[in-house]
Amino acid sequence: MPTATARTLDHPVRAEIRLEAVLHALSDPVRLQVVRFLAGLADGEEAACSALDLAVTKSTSTHHYRVLREAGLIRQVYRGTAKMSVVRREDLDALFPGLLDTVLTADAAQRRRLS
Amino acid sequence: MPTATARTLDHPVRAEIRLEAVLHALSDPVRLQVVRFLAGLADGEEAACSALDLAVTKSTSTHHYRVLREAGLIRQVYRGTAKMSVVRREDLDALFPGLLDTVLTADAAQRRRLS
Repeated sequence: MPTATARTLDHPVRAEIRLEAVLHALSDPVRLQVVRFLAGLADGEEAACSALDLAVTKSTSTHHYRVLREAGLIRQVYRGTAKMSVVRREDLDALFPGLLDTVLTADAAQRRRLS
Repeated sequence: MPTATARTLDHPVRAEIRLEAVLHALSDPVRLQVVRFLAGLADGEEAACSALDLAVTKSTSTHHYRVLREAGLIRQVYRGTAKMSVVRREDLDALFPGLLDTVLTADAAQRRRLS
């Protein structure tokens, strides 16, 4: 049976979040898709990784979620056997005002342009 | 003697610039330093790579400028033996309104926070 420690995922605290890591995390189309999806949920609403159908393998998906979590973009917690994710909007907006929204707007504009 | 072709550097046209590549280019502290420097110049002013003293080797510096150029963040042209660089602000602002300024503001805030 996993211990409480094994079931807790590492996250940077707000002061440890770095712009370079956030930009790197957002520089991949699959990770951008995850953030777009999570940012579109109601405030504070969590989603399981399985809620979004990514065109990648399970292990690649897990990798992308981990990059997002370790960069400070999302928070992940276990609820029973499900790993639930939520965007750290409050932390991001406090550190980098407007950045998340500007990137999501740019992403939406690009998808319109390329479709 | 280099031909005209050899002296011309490849750049994506505006429509080829991709958000993911721009974010990746900006996700490195040295490249962020270059963009910060170039964005601080007067409108249209070019700078030689040697104008900025980066804490990296010449070949690493050349690599970083190339990543920025291929992502569409900067334009580079030869003037005699010097390679001159300028931020593609007009292209970036047209494609991703506010993105460059938001990133530079976030970068400035982070540097204040960490200093």
